Amino acid sequence: MGMIGGGEGSFIGPVHRMAARLDGMITLVSGAFSSDPAVSESTGLKEGLARERVYDTWQDMVKTESRLPAGERPDFIAIVTPNHLHYGPARMALEAGFDVLCDKPLCLSVAEAIDLHETVERTGRLFCLTHNYTGYPMIKRAREMVLGGEIGEIRKVAVEYFQGWLSSPVETTGNRQAEWRADPRRAGIAGTMADIGTHAFNLAEYVTGLETVALSADLHSVLPGRLLDDDGSVFLLFSSGICGTLLASQVALGEENNLSLRVYGDKGSISWRQMEPNSLKVMWPDKPLQIYRTATTFSTSGISSPLHARIPAGHPEGFIEAFANLYRNFAMNIQAVREARKHDPVHDYPGINEGVRGMKFLEAVVSSGMNKSVRTAL
Amino acid sequence: MGMIGGGEGSFIGPVHRMAARLDGMITLVSGAFSSDPAVSESTGLKEGLARERVYDTWQDMVKTESRLPAGERPDFIAIVTPNHLHYGPARMALEAGFDVLCDKPLCLSVAEAIDLHETVERTGRLFCLTHNYTGYPMIKRAREMVLGGEIGEIRKVAVEYFQGWLSSPVETTGNRQAEWRADPRRAGIAGTMADIGTHAFNLAEYVTGLETVALSADLHSVLPGRLLDDDGSVFLLFSSGICGTLLASQVALGEENNLSLRVYGDKGSISWRQMEPNSLKVMWPDKPLQIYRTATTFSTSGISSPLHARIPAGHPEGFIEAFANLYRNFAMNIQAVREARKHDPVHDYPGINEGVRGMKFLEAVVSSGMNKSVRTAL
Amino acid sequence: MGMIGGGEGSFIGPVHRMAARLDGMITLVSGAFSSDPAVSESTGLKEGLARERVYDTWQDMVKTESRLPAGERPDFIAIVTPNHLHYGPARMALEAGFDVLCDKPLCLSVAEAIDLHETVERTGRLFCLTHNYTGYPMIKRAREMVLGGEIGEIRKVAVEYFQGWLSSPVETTGNRQAEWRADPRRAGIAGTMADIGTHAFNLAEYVTGLETVALSADLHSVLPGRLLDDDGSVFLLFSSGICGTLLASQVALGEENNLSLRVYGDKGSISWRQMEPNSLKVMWPDKPLQIYRTATTFSTSGISSPLHARIPAGHPEGFIEAFANLYRNFAMNIQAVREARKHDPVHDYPGINEGVRGMKFLEAVVSSGMNKSVRTAL
Amino acid sequence: MGMIGGGEGSFIGPVHRMAARLDGMITLVSGAFSSDPAVSESTGLKEGLARERVYDTWQDMVKTESRLPAGERPDFIAIVTPNHLHYGPARMALEAGFDVLCDKPLCLSVAEAIDLHETVERTGRLFCLTHNYTGYPMIKRAREMVLGGEIGEIRKVAVEYFQGWLSSPVETTGNRQAEWRADPRRAGIAGTMADIGTHAFNLAEYVTGLETVALSADLHSVLPGRLLDDDGSVFLLFSSGICGTLLASQVALGEENNLSLRVYGDKGSISWRQMEPNSLKVMWPDKPLQIYRTATTFSTSGISSPLHARIPAGHPEGFIEAFANLYRNFAMNIQAVREARKHDPVHDYPGINEGVRGMKFLEAVVSSGMNKSVRTAL
Repeated sequence: MGMIGGGEGSFIGPVHRMAARLDGMITLVSGAFSSDPAVSESTGLKEGLARERVYDTWQDMVKTESRLPAGERPDFIAIVTPNHLHYGPARMALEAGFDVLCDKPLCLSVAEAIDLHETVERTGRLFCLTHNYTGYPMIKRAREMVLGGEIGEIRKVAVEYFQGWLSSPVETTGNRQAEWRADPRRAGIAGTMADIGTHAFNLAEYVTGLETVALSADLHSVLPGRLLDDDGSVFLLFSSGICGTLLASQVALGEENNLSLRVYGDKGSISWRQMEPNSLKVMWPDKPLQIYRTATTFSTSGISSPLHARIPAGHPEGFIEAFANLYRNFAMNIQAVREARKHDPVHDYPGINEGVRGMKFLEAVVSSGMNKSVRTAL
Repeated sequence: MGMIGGGEGSFIGPVHRMAARLDGMITLVSGAFSSDPAVSESTGLKEGLARERVYDTWQDMVKTESRLPAGERPDFIAIVTPNHLHYGPARMALEAGFDVLCDKPLCLSVAEAIDLHETVERTGRLFCLTHNYTGYPMIKRAREMVLGGEIGEIRKVAVEYFQGWLSSPVETTGNRQAEWRADPRRAGIAGTMADIGTHAFNLAEYVTGLETVALSADLHSVLPGRLLDDDGSVFLLFSSGICGTLLASQVALGEENNLSLRVYGDKGSISWRQMEPNSLKVMWPDKPLQIYRTATTFSTSGISSPLHARIPAGHPEGFIEAFANLYRNFAMNIQAVREARKHDPVHDYPGINEGVRGMKFLEAVVSSGMNKSVRTAL
Repeated sequence: MGMIGGGEGSFIGPVHRMAARLDGMITLVSGAFSSDPAVSESTGLKEGLARERVYDTWQDMVKTESRLPAGERPDFIAIVTPNHLHYGPARMALEAGFDVLCDKPLCLSVAEAIDLHETVERTGRLFCLTHNYTGYPMIKRAREMVLGGEIGEIRKVAVEYFQGWLSSPVETTGNRQAEWRADPRRAGIAGTMADIGTHAFNLAEYVTGLETVALSADLHSVLPGRLLDDDGSVFLLFSSGICGTLLASQVALGEENNLSLRVYGDKGSISWRQMEPNSLKVMWPDKPLQIYRTATTFSTSGISSPLHARIPAGHPEGFIEAFANLYRNFAMNIQAVREARKHDPVHDYPGINEGVRGMKFLEAVVSSGMNKSVRTAL
Repeated sequence: MGMIGGGEGSFIGPVHRMAARLDGMITLVSGAFSSDPAVSESTGLKEGLARERVYDTWQDMVKTESRLPAGERPDFIAIVTPNHLHYGPARMALEAGFDVLCDKPLCLSVAEAIDLHETVERTGRLFCLTHNYTGYPMIKRAREMVLGGEIGEIRKVAVEYFQGWLSSPVETTGNRQAEWRADPRRAGIAGTMADIGTHAFNLAEYVTGLETVALSADLHSVLPGRLLDDDGSVFLLFSSGICGTLLASQVALGEENNLSLRVYGDKGSISWRQMEPNSLKVMWPDKPLQIYRTATTFSTSGISSPLHARIPAGHPEGFIEAFANLYRNFAMNIQAVREARKHDPVHDYPGINEGVRGMKFLEAVVSSGMNKSVRTAL
């Protein structure tokens, strides 16, 4: 793979590289790691790349790498830049014949998203959007249970994503992660909702298979001077007529990375928390609650979940492993295409459709939030 | 005390009686336990009352008991009936010179609530409204921390109350608790919001000391045929300008009595869950999270909290003990008045003001819920 | 009931009185609350007793009360004194025709225990020993599961009871609870093992139905100058040939009242912790782990457990409620005898046999602990 | 690195390879993955090795690889075979000039261990023993707190390691992991105690810095026909005179990988559980308990712990990451030696001394267990 973004000082760049390495299927061969050529170079050398495969600009990289012969050419480009640098690189890479893996949110607007969707369709390339929380084994199990009808008709969805790291104005004191997220030119129309709200939204739709059709949002910039939301709450209306709530905050002081999902059905209910990701609580009306666990071998644990675990139960698998599941599944799909095999859909990953939906969610949330929480269609 | 309501088959009647008995300060001396005289009689005899102190109607009871001489006359009347039978008995008892302890919600409308408030003021009687969750030692500690500024300025409040017992239409299959709660004539204008939403609302205002000034509500009758809400979500706006969320449901299948409160400040944050009530999680930006525990003797555990615990730390105290704290504090106040002493406000309990606020909350929630979640002032 | 011991400053006295009051079945009518007549008097008056029913000595009380006519005479005597004052009062009360409820451990030696056992047999009186942890609903459920074969043949038992309150020499700084527990004349041959080890031992035998036949003990007085153990560990051998461990400490700094029991079978396993007593974890080899909960109404939750809960699931029941279950069951047995009915054994409570076993355990533990952990028969 | 053992079907082989890959510092270049040459070949090819670097026997591999020129020669050999194949390969690799990373337990006897220790000393090679649980960030933090005196003088240690996977005789039904562990020729003198008891022992000594000087053991083969222990309990005596307990079982049905450590001091206490490895509970006598968490940036979180975390707090790090910390630290040491730099001891890893201690522990445990739990010196 080649990588755009993720230079030294980046949070998500190293995560992508560890995730890509974990299963020994993917090798980093080239990169344009930073808008600062010096950073790009030092990152590339540190990663052991040949000097000529490290580029000053992503344009240069896509152009040059696309001309390499098959054996040397990367199979796909990973884009791990701030939001405003997703659309351009993704489009150029797709047009140049690369499969693309891109960080979320997809881009800056629904218009860009639709354009990228059209590009993916037209070029026939594969596209992976790293909504990495869908990679957890217990999320796979949850989805199988819900779609398989084990908890019956869904009645209510409650998803929540609380962090506290923006509780002080760290974007003004040199935190580069915070800087671009607080800057509308780089982050887009939303702050917290773009950064983590889209994860929560994607997770809810992924596990339930429901589609959100409208929402009402209550958005806040809790810290004075912030141009984008750092906290917000949303009433969700799904196509089935059922309702849900999505709560997100980055000023919930003391919260680390507290993403949780609860889905209530008429036969059962499920509850999952990212910070203890190897447990899935399942509640029933007429029998004791159950805790499903990553990597137990029970026949009741479904098909997909064991395929996304690496080690026996009780040996905790974490964030990097879940992230690596997206990389592995994407790589398996690329291999299958190359070998003209059908890719087994159990090795799924979020794609361009999820990217479009995320942008629709964001535009609706901001629109509603700016209009006294008026109900807004997606 | 005398008791109105709480006949056999009642859930809350026995709870009130256990709570009243626990500390050995209160003796049940009379009752009109049911609208069915036979039930009233059998309950009274089972409780060991003299036959002549068991009444067929509450009117009869209030009238007769109020004429008893000082030593025999109950000090207060406890009203533990369905919602529509709070206002009448409470008003009559107050006018007859009794102090009154009443279950929540206070009554059926803001108008009734204001009238009761005026009656309490005019008669000079004491009034306790059993928002029993405020009786937990760790809630006392939470309130002290918040009001004492330990977590700084409040930035966000998230309160939630999920139950699952109305996940099937039990009100049509003989469950008497569910029957009256689903009946607008007896429950009032709201279902879940009246039954548990008011508890959540009260808890949030009690711990934070904030006053809700407006809200937007998303109300649902998830089960077909229900006339009142069985699920709802609310955006809260507090007078300080900060925001919060209140989520309540009785169709969250599998949930038992899952009330939780989180308050996020700019110096620290707290988190509490009713189902593990003896722990209070406190999060800080610059040091490890702490777990305060019921009945530890640390000087850091505040003044109020130890006064509301009965046994050493690690010996779990539960729902009945918290409920009993309201009874005990109310009894202490009655004693203080009788002995012309000042009642120590650390032995606090919810009163008529909390009742009025609860009714304002309910009317605003229903109004907003029926008008596309429009923001509605309290 | 009449009470011996439990004067002001006592920990367990108020617990007994709250437990006795909770269900409204038992009234305190007399007491010799302290070896200090002034304390006895002030406690009795505070409890609302008639002055003539408060005694200076327990001998006086037993003698006088036993001559009262049937309606005034207490049905039973509760003994809540330090260990050395169990045997004498219990024996005298039994001989005087009273049923007896006594705190644990039963007495100071196996010899005394056998004598009391013989006395109970001979007098035909009822006897309850307050191993109160057996009163929790989830312990009832655990016992039913184990004895009913749900977890198959037992293979291993691990019971543990850690406290930290004796981590500093509080017995030398005015803590009366600690003083007598550290004094061999009042506590007997063991410290921690008598105070909490016997609870752990009783709980393990109660839930498993197994009988310990031998043990090896490693006993310590961790704090210098202590004459009795404040920490110890035991290998247990049960009659079935299977083994277990019992760990107890009162110098485990920071631990509150951390009693836990795990029983591993060949079909399933259970795990319970006193500090979250309303959950019972059940593990299976071939299906997800289950959490049984107090007061859920599932048919799978057995017969005994619901009879020992008072309020719906999710409304936490605690230490006092579990303690009250012993009082209630004992009172029901007394009533049954009085009415010449058969007492339903589902309303069970620990009795004289458990007291004898506890003393055998203690003598074996001390003997082994003093002899290099040599295996010692009970 | 080159690898001996870990062919397809192995549990620990893939773990070692993932751990080695995670940080991008180590590349697998050669291997003798199995005693079956076909398995060795297929594993090697699957790992992308050149055919000539895949060997039929470890002897062949060590001999051939040791003659390769510096750039091609692996820096170290990883030995991930069953226990009986640690000593031979380790000795030969050391003698051939390789640094060695070896799975635990070190070998089959104290004599072998001492010989290996001498070999390491003599050859001057680096040696890493994969007691991987020491790699968790919160274990690093725990060790720093304990050695830094934060919890005062240690008074008691309780370590426990329960698994349930040998609850049925899986060694007779084709489970290869179980087969060799149940076979004294391949596993050595102990079963469970060798497999997981040594981990528990190492963890206790690592975190406390204490040295065990004697022990009493109660060993069992719970399943009929087993030649080695599958369950055991140990009283530990440390050189400081304080005591501890070590409980281990592989027939604790339903337990996954339940390793826990508690250390009680006279100023504070700590508690850690492997299945939720990112939390470290710290208890104090005079203030609320604290939860330290992986990757929080508090100055109070010590020096070592942050160096062993990869991503921000709340993004769970698991078993593979902890394992990878040993590989990374070992690789850093190798680099430092090559560059003639001093290796920073904060990047520590278990070595040959820990291997010797583990074998002494095992021989003492088996000796005591076979002699009625007699106290046995290490």
